[in-house]
Amino acid sequence: MEGSGKSTLISRLASLLRSRGIETAVTREPGGTSLGEKLRKILLDPAGSQLCSMGELFLYAADRAQHIEEVIKPALAENRTVLCDRFSDATAAYQGYGRGISLDIISVVDREARNGITPDLTVLLDLPPEEGLRRVRSRNEQYGSKTETRMDDEQPAFHHKVREGYLALSAGEPDRFLILNAMDKPEELAQQVMQELEKRFPHVF
Amino acid sequence: MEGSGKSTLISRLASLLRSRGIETAVTREPGGTSLGEKLRKILLDPAGSQLCSMGELFLYAADRAQHIEEVIKPALAENRTVLCDRFSDATAAYQGYGRGISLDIISVVDREARNGITPDLTVLLDLPPEEGLRRVRSRNEQYGSKTETRMDDEQPAFHHKVREGYLALSAGEPDRFLILNAMDKPEELAQQVMQELEKRFPHVF
Repeated sequence: MEGSGKSTLISRLASLLRSRGIETAVTREPGGTSLGEKLRKILLDPAGSQLCSMGELFLYAADRAQHIEEVIKPALAENRTVLCDRFSDATAAYQGYGRGISLDIISVVDREARNGITPDLTVLLDLPPEEGLRRVRSRNEQYGSKTETRMDDEQPAFHHKVREGYLALSAGEPDRFLILNAMDKPEELAQQVMQELEKRFPHVF
Repeated sequence: MEGSGKSTLISRLASLLRSRGIETAVTREPGGTSLGEKLRKILLDPAGSQLCSMGELFLYAADRAQHIEEVIKPALAENRTVLCDRFSDATAAYQGYGRGISLDIISVVDREARNGITPDLTVLLDLPPEEGLRRVRSRNEQYGSKTETRMDDEQPAFHHKVREGYLALSAGEPDRFLILNAMDKPEELAQQVMQELEKRFPHVF
């Protein structure tokens, strides 16, 4: 969710994994490729508020397809662990639960974009949407309005629907998800993920 | 097809229709909206040759979805005739027949992008791919390399597959298509389309 501490957690996890000798690639969506960074600009630009829901869905799908081909598949082929900031669930939560596009359509589009790639573990950083938006606003004030995005502009009701979407998605695939309380301290969150990884993938450590 | 005279024909048709008192909107894909022009740059940039096929498909779909919402539906709602340079058949011909993406996938994606909009008439300007590419090259020399695109860079075999795709699509929906010989003179091509329009849509004239 917005302001849940995704980047901080990913950067801590990457350090912890690397300190254990695990080669780790860090990437994000939208973005992660030269195409993706162009699309990220279009997708998150507050001036692009006239972008229609289906256009938005297809831009995220294009970003994902290219990201998988250019970044994720090559990293996995080199036996690296990939930490990705947002993935398919974000599309289902924002464009499906948030914007109201049918989950069946999203699933078909996403399956073609993913081309067989599924995360081994998805970490859901859950927190009250108001708290997340408060954090985003405070970060925006600190760094200037440039970090404000089309998603931050949405009304709280939209972010509540997104949160409910994430919770529904994780309830539907409990084995793939680890739900954490994003109000916990960053170092505690990182430790909780590490414990889960050691439990699930002992052969890696 | 590339170099078949689409822009020239559309501009002549728009004049002829307007001279008959028919309000006409001229638009194109990719492009036609502010998002579309950004995507057009990405899609046709010869430097973007690493764009994966599925990413390309989704960018065209995003362009189409936004184009329909922002340009085509409002124009139709105002009872205007819309002339569009390329549409869904181009996606099936280039991404399907040309790049080898399954036509079923393309059809699902395109249906969502089109959101119920189907052309009343599709004009296929058919010509030998070599002749089309020769015209494009000669235009590029005249106007400088800026008009060269990723599609012009493709090998003749690709353009032959695209042509076969267009012919297969038109054979599958003969009622929607008018196939013209793009070796005919521009004024003759425009007259042939006008005759077909008068025959098919007498109530408009």
